[in-house]
Amino acid sequence: MTHSVPPPPRPATAPAPSELAWVPFVSVQNMMALINGIGLETALRELADYIEADFRRWPDFDKTPRVASHSRDGVIELMPTADAESYGFKYVNGHPANLKAGFQTVTAFGVLASVANGYPLLLTEMTVLTALRTAATSALVGRLLAPKGARTMAMIGAGAQCEFQALAFRAICGIETVRIHDIDPAATAKALRNLARHGLEAVACGSAQDAVEGAEIVTTCTADKQNATILTDNMIGAGVHINAIGGDCPGKTELHRDILLRAGIFVEYPPQTRIEGEIQQLAPDHEVTEIWQVLRGEAEGRRDAAQITLFDSVGFAIEDFSALRWVHDRARAAGCVERLDMLADPDDPRDLFGMLDRAAG
Amino acid sequence: MTHSVPPPPRPATAPAPSELAWVPFVSVQNMMALINGIGLETALRELADYIEADFRRWPDFDKTPRVASHSRDGVIELMPTADAESYGFKYVNGHPANLKAGFQTVTAFGVLASVANGYPLLLTEMTVLTALRTAATSALVGRLLAPKGARTMAMIGAGAQCEFQALAFRAICGIETVRIHDIDPAATAKALRNLARHGLEAVACGSAQDAVEGAEIVTTCTADKQNATILTDNMIGAGVHINAIGGDCPGKTELHRDILLRAGIFVEYPPQTRIEGEIQQLAPDHEVTEIWQVLRGEAEGRRDAAQITLFDSVGFAIEDFSALRWVHDRARAAGCVERLDMLADPDDPRDLFGMLDRAAG
Repeated sequence: MTHSVPPPPRPATAPAPSELAWVPFVSVQNMMALINGIGLETALRELADYIEADFRRWPDFDKTPRVASHSRDGVIELMPTADAESYGFKYVNGHPANLKAGFQTVTAFGVLASVANGYPLLLTEMTVLTALRTAATSALVGRLLAPKGARTMAMIGAGAQCEFQALAFRAICGIETVRIHDIDPAATAKALRNLARHGLEAVACGSAQDAVEGAEIVTTCTADKQNATILTDNMIGAGVHINAIGGDCPGKTELHRDILLRAGIFVEYPPQTRIEGEIQQLAPDHEVTEIWQVLRGEAEGRRDAAQITLFDSVGFAIEDFSALRWVHDRARAAGCVERLDMLADPDDPRDLFGMLDRAAG
Repeated sequence: MTHSVPPPPRPATAPAPSELAWVPFVSVQNMMALINGIGLETALRELADYIEADFRRWPDFDKTPRVASHSRDGVIELMPTADAESYGFKYVNGHPANLKAGFQTVTAFGVLASVANGYPLLLTEMTVLTALRTAATSALVGRLLAPKGARTMAMIGAGAQCEFQALAFRAICGIETVRIHDIDPAATAKALRNLARHGLEAVACGSAQDAVEGAEIVTTCTADKQNATILTDNMIGAGVHINAIGGDCPGKTELHRDILLRAGIFVEYPPQTRIEGEIQQLAPDHEVTEIWQVLRGEAEGRRDAAQITLFDSVGFAIEDFSALRWVHDRARAAGCVERLDMLADPDDPRDLFGMLDRAAG
């Protein structure tokens, strides 16, 4: 299904790197080959299982707020986390203006490393992988909180996340119909074409109001960096589950505050969500429930059929950690790994200088 | 002098990654080819120039304390910094017990990225590069603070940093003789062999006391993670410059506290050095001078010929940033760059899903 690249040629005078020097690398092409080889919906289900397993052992993790470097046009973030065996981090940028210049708004890569000796175990693209882990997390939480028997999802925003969300909710929650609205009809048309190839019934809707009609689940994934009101209070009826993806940094929200006041609110990691999520609109002590506690049976999920539930999703480092574990477990057997000469490994660890000297021949 | 690797083969069905998808990569082999091609001492001088240039514009940088993940056996750190144009970070581990298991105590890699769009500009090995930037920083500070006409340096510790320090002090400060002591005679012998090949006079010394005899500069670069006393007060005479490299994390120091009380102390970034450096032994308000202020003429360097000066070096993110800039400027022209398919770059940035689908053929 894919390729394994031979090690790069070396100058004739340089000794070959030792086995310890190689870091497994999953390129974009190999990530796509891995996902397509496994099958997208199977991959989404497997990722949801990895994320659920890690959320269930939440107290085992070293949790650090992401380290953000803000500039006029965007942000570059490092998102590290670790358990007793493994350390992972993701590099991710967010530059809304990139779209107009023909660049991706978000690109990402990540590393999994051994806590015991600090050596990287995996370097991988994470732009595609993040799209999958975000959708898998949404659908995992949807399975936990959405009303029983939900079959229709509204989707406001038809950007890069749209189709991943739709297929994750089919694979994991049994959604049969998606009602899509985007302010750009071309974006909606793109999503409809893509979903048609996967046999999912998708309906183009002229407004957000139209899209939420009859939907038990409402997903918002719009991209503008501003306080927007994608959903107003009158659009959300009793019992609906809201999956709010787009509001994920300070000053960027999608829901009218009145919806938040009516909803049971579920979050990944409160210290981060209170800054980045929809709940930045609320008092800093407004009650929220942590997803991991619901998964462990330590907190209540949906209270009753009439409750409005809201997953105020901003993305958390543990989801990336789970995704890195999944790639590490799956990519080698699938032949989707190259190897990079990224670690200096002299014969005598104290003789880094001698290694450099010998390379000169 | 080296090689440029062709892009990896792709499945026949997948479209070729676009130009934006490629991230320049400098492997260990290519880093060694770059340094050996330029010449080690020239490379050290160029690095010192880059570091000096960045220290002189210190206020332009976004300075963040490193993000450390500590475990029983060591630490994994991310060291980010940025100016208005570029963002850089280094991944580095420190695992003292690795040596016995045949692994490097410290390995590192790093990334330089564009602040404007968040795209990585360079991924590079940094184990070898860090050895050079540490030595270049030490010698740059030595040129600033050491007594005029210094020709002899004592070196306590003959580990991985030893030869880089010795040659940097020759290239940048005019040192002619190095007097080396290590508790392991085999380590000293290794250093003598390596330095002999580079024509630097090196003398094996039976004790630290012996090594400092007649030396105007004393470099300590030992590796044990403990509060050690490599230098005692009686060993340091008037006018000596101490370059203390090995004490670089909480609980790891090399100098007796009495030396610190007699010395003018110079540091990179006080908030970090007070936690990690020799001055963790002192009161949190003990006076220190920042190197960048001396370089800009905003603070006094060596006061007089009799003053003991101490560079309490722990390594700071801006030095890595300078080193990343140097590699970025130098590696491509030298043919020492491969390219990695690390960024997903769909034709339509909103259609990441379509790119994945098309890769399936």
